[in-house]
Amino acid sequence: MGTVSLSLWLLPLCSALFFCISSAHFFPARFPSPIVQFQAENQVSVSSPKGFYEEKFFTQILDHFNFNPQSYQTFQQRYLINDTFWGGPEKNSPIFLYTGNEGDIEWFAQNTGFMYDNAPLFKALIVFIEHRFYGKSVPFGGNKDVAYSNGSTLGYLSSTQALADYATLITDLKNNLSATESPVVVFGGSYGGMLAAWFRLKYPHVTIGALASSAPILGFVNLTSPYSFSRIITQDFRSESENCYKVIKGSWQQIEDVASQKGGLKRLRKSFKICKNYISGGALVGWLSTAWVYTAMTDYPTPSNFLNPMPAYPVKQMCKAIDDPTTGNDTLAKLYGAASVYYNYTGTATCFDLDDDSDPHGLGGWSWQACTEMILPTGGSDEESIFPASKWDFNDRATFCKSYFDVEPRPQWIPTEFGGHNIKRVLRRFGSNIIFFNGLRDPWSGGGVLSDISKSIIAIVAEKGAHHVDLRFATSEDPKWLKEVRKKEVKIIAQWLSEYYHDLAHISS
Amino acid sequence: MGTVSLSLWLLPLCSALFFCISSAHFFPARFPSPIVQFQAENQVSVSSPKGFYEEKFFTQILDHFNFNPQSYQTFQQRYLINDTFWGGPEKNSPIFLYTGNEGDIEWFAQNTGFMYDNAPLFKALIVFIEHRFYGKSVPFGGNKDVAYSNGSTLGYLSSTQALADYATLITDLKNNLSATESPVVVFGGSYGGMLAAWFRLKYPHVTIGALASSAPILGFVNLTSPYSFSRIITQDFRSESENCYKVIKGSWQQIEDVASQKGGLKRLRKSFKICKNYISGGALVGWLSTAWVYTAMTDYPTPSNFLNPMPAYPVKQMCKAIDDPTTGNDTLAKLYGAASVYYNYTGTATCFDLDDDSDPHGLGGWSWQACTEMILPTGGSDEESIFPASKWDFNDRATFCKSYFDVEPRPQWIPTEFGGHNIKRVLRRFGSNIIFFNGLRDPWSGGGVLSDISKSIIAIVAEKGAHHVDLRFATSEDPKWLKEVRKKEVKIIAQWLSEYYHDLAHISS
Repeated sequence: MGTVSLSLWLLPLCSALFFCISSAHFFPARFPSPIVQFQAENQVSVSSPKGFYEEKFFTQILDHFNFNPQSYQTFQQRYLINDTFWGGPEKNSPIFLYTGNEGDIEWFAQNTGFMYDNAPLFKALIVFIEHRFYGKSVPFGGNKDVAYSNGSTLGYLSSTQALADYATLITDLKNNLSATESPVVVFGGSYGGMLAAWFRLKYPHVTIGALASSAPILGFVNLTSPYSFSRIITQDFRSESENCYKVIKGSWQQIEDVASQKGGLKRLRKSFKICKNYISGGALVGWLSTAWVYTAMTDYPTPSNFLNPMPAYPVKQMCKAIDDPTTGNDTLAKLYGAASVYYNYTGTATCFDLDDDSDPHGLGGWSWQACTEMILPTGGSDEESIFPASKWDFNDRATFCKSYFDVEPRPQWIPTEFGGHNIKRVLRRFGSNIIFFNGLRDPWSGGGVLSDISKSIIAIVAEKGAHHVDLRFATSEDPKWLKEVRKKEVKIIAQWLSEYYHDLAHISS
Repeated sequence: MGTVSLSLWLLPLCSALFFCISSAHFFPARFPSPIVQFQAENQVSVSSPKGFYEEKFFTQILDHFNFNPQSYQTFQQRYLINDTFWGGPEKNSPIFLYTGNEGDIEWFAQNTGFMYDNAPLFKALIVFIEHRFYGKSVPFGGNKDVAYSNGSTLGYLSSTQALADYATLITDLKNNLSATESPVVVFGGSYGGMLAAWFRLKYPHVTIGALASSAPILGFVNLTSPYSFSRIITQDFRSESENCYKVIKGSWQQIEDVASQKGGLKRLRKSFKICKNYISGGALVGWLSTAWVYTAMTDYPTPSNFLNPMPAYPVKQMCKAIDDPTTGNDTLAKLYGAASVYYNYTGTATCFDLDDDSDPHGLGGWSWQACTEMILPTGGSDEESIFPASKWDFNDRATFCKSYFDVEPRPQWIPTEFGGHNIKRVLRRFGSNIIFFNGLRDPWSGGGVLSDISKSIIAIVAEKGAHHVDLRFATSEDPKWLKEVRKKEVKIIAQWLSEYYHDLAHISS
């Protein structure tokens, strides 16, 4: 019985890095701390965001793949550029290009220190292109209200259009810089990593290689088990302490029990310092699972501020709170202590708004993408799961998407357009120069490429790594394994460049 | 003066295999013989079109790359299938797939005997998919009047949509046939060859290799000289006889001179057996150049009936007529004799309609493609050219397209989407399993890949070959070089399949 009613509470499991679509509800991630503070501890001469990049705009076409009159509409696409380290076009010095994902591009720039850390070594130009419909790169006159109003406008938000945007923009930029022979290396994390890998596969004439970090390109329907996402989260907590796992696993029923008691909701409100008078059990479940999911995802070995400010090894910290003997067997107190690691590490919050739907990083378009092509089935939980058992059902997604956007998902489209089935057989003799990085503590790693495909399509797997940890700014506290991952990546990129310059010198067009 | 006014007569040079856009006019190719007779001399058990293939339809989506409400509209896409030789799904026997180009797919099936000739050897299933907007594969309810009415409907006619159609259809078909592990080899000639090569490059997870015959993938703006097309035609005629070249080259001025004389147009009408009373010099120039261009293109070593019924080595036959001593120095009679090789080889025509705009192969959509993405600059003629000297100017194309379709060409799109610049450097370390066949007598070979790119991206060049001659049915009169070309192609395809089956046995997905 408990399980049945819990499943009605609708545990949100995330369909992409940031936005969660449960079996019937849509939960935006909650960000009590709306300002991402820029944390770059280890770079040269980029001490403030102002000197960090220059903001520019490119007039981009609305639809690359058809020639209807409306396809000719244009919008201003933002990109960030930093030429501090660039060797210039005379030397055909390289371009490091970030293929922006589902959010404000400044946020990704600030969290992709790898490009800044290594640009000096390669004398690289740094460019971050913002994904259409996010940040300031909004079609329909930059008016988000119009652009996000319905399927006729949102329809232009798709991965293939984004890739064509990148190809068009960088080709034009290279022409303008007289840098047509400068090799482009692309970088991306999460959905941006998928875009980076696909960009190399679809546009080899535009980029010589891709570092695709934590890119779940195999995370689509019929490619990866819908249980893998929650299994990895389960394992993350369990690896810290069996008790931690058990407490959280048992907590769903307890929360339900408390909620159904007289005065129970009031007790829950007090226990979790909920700001408002109103609280639903479902909202609390969503709030807690968001914390567990995103903390597992960003279980970095150093203090970070990607989604929220967090300590090093935050899952360990959460389990410390759970296992804390001073809270005895007060499960609610333990959960509150653990959730505070995610929601209140700075200690400044006095209460929490469970219905907070603020979106500081401008990620709101992902729900559309998750309702059209990005059908990443992550919402299944088996009996062992730290979350209540539930089956993933495509129809739930379809029903949600119909009611929310009046749109029908195309679950087969991404595997048809970009492949995924039998990837080893397909790419063993085709393509080159892709690094797939995955950290095995990252729930998205279940949909990642975890072993080498060929001599130049390489998997780098870090057992202790979390979501695109390699792309973060290097810090003096980075563990040895992380340093080695980055060293390996740098070495491979150097090899791509070396081959490129060799070919440039020896092969006429 | 003569040259100036001739240029006003607007020499049509063809922007693709079939349709010609001159500097300001649009001349459809003329087909006095509207019925393509099925000529298969050498195959097993396919003696009539009825047994040649079965006609089927697939419900295809209108726009793969955006998610607007109208993108969800569907249309019936035709494909032809023949399983006579197929080894079946149990043995993972291969699929030979033709990526249809700009016309009725039956016409291509009837002129791509290579697939039929070799299917028995490979136990291959034969599939021809029709290109959207051509033949019976017309969106908007199959209503050509609606589909071709304006840019809002024609806008969905594009190469990228066509490729996505092919990926979607063949993936679905394989599922339905329980043949998901059957390798797909794609074939295509001319624009269909471009699609085949691009299909392998963009959809390596759908096809293991492509035979791209006479595919001018480098024929786009800033990639190939706009003079190369007419230079090759010039050379074709010149190689037969210097006099032949000189007579044709001089004829434009003579036609103009005659046309400007009193009674001159009447004389021209009589000389060329024009059916109607009205004749313009421009129409005659168009009619003649169409004959020279298409005959050079289809200068096959055996009798053929691709565009029109023609003898073996038709350029030689044309030059025989030009050089015929019995016509003395009557240039008009000589031209008429040569043009008859193309327009009246069967001898059944009694007069010719210069304004005939019949379109027996349903090629009408090409003009739209040539006005949007297929900007193949072929219309330049230098001083040596067999055609009057003229410069190719993109603005002429743009002006025509604006007035004819109210559409603006995107000349940079194809090189951005599919590449072309520095192709050797780009593909040397990327991609595999493409054969680029080109015959050097084919004017389109100027935009072809004429030398090997890597061990598995191979150029086969036949000095005496014409437009996708390799794909035609084998006949007992085929010259040795043609037999060798096909033998080499078969050997390479066998190698792809052998590697595929090796990988299938040894590499788990």
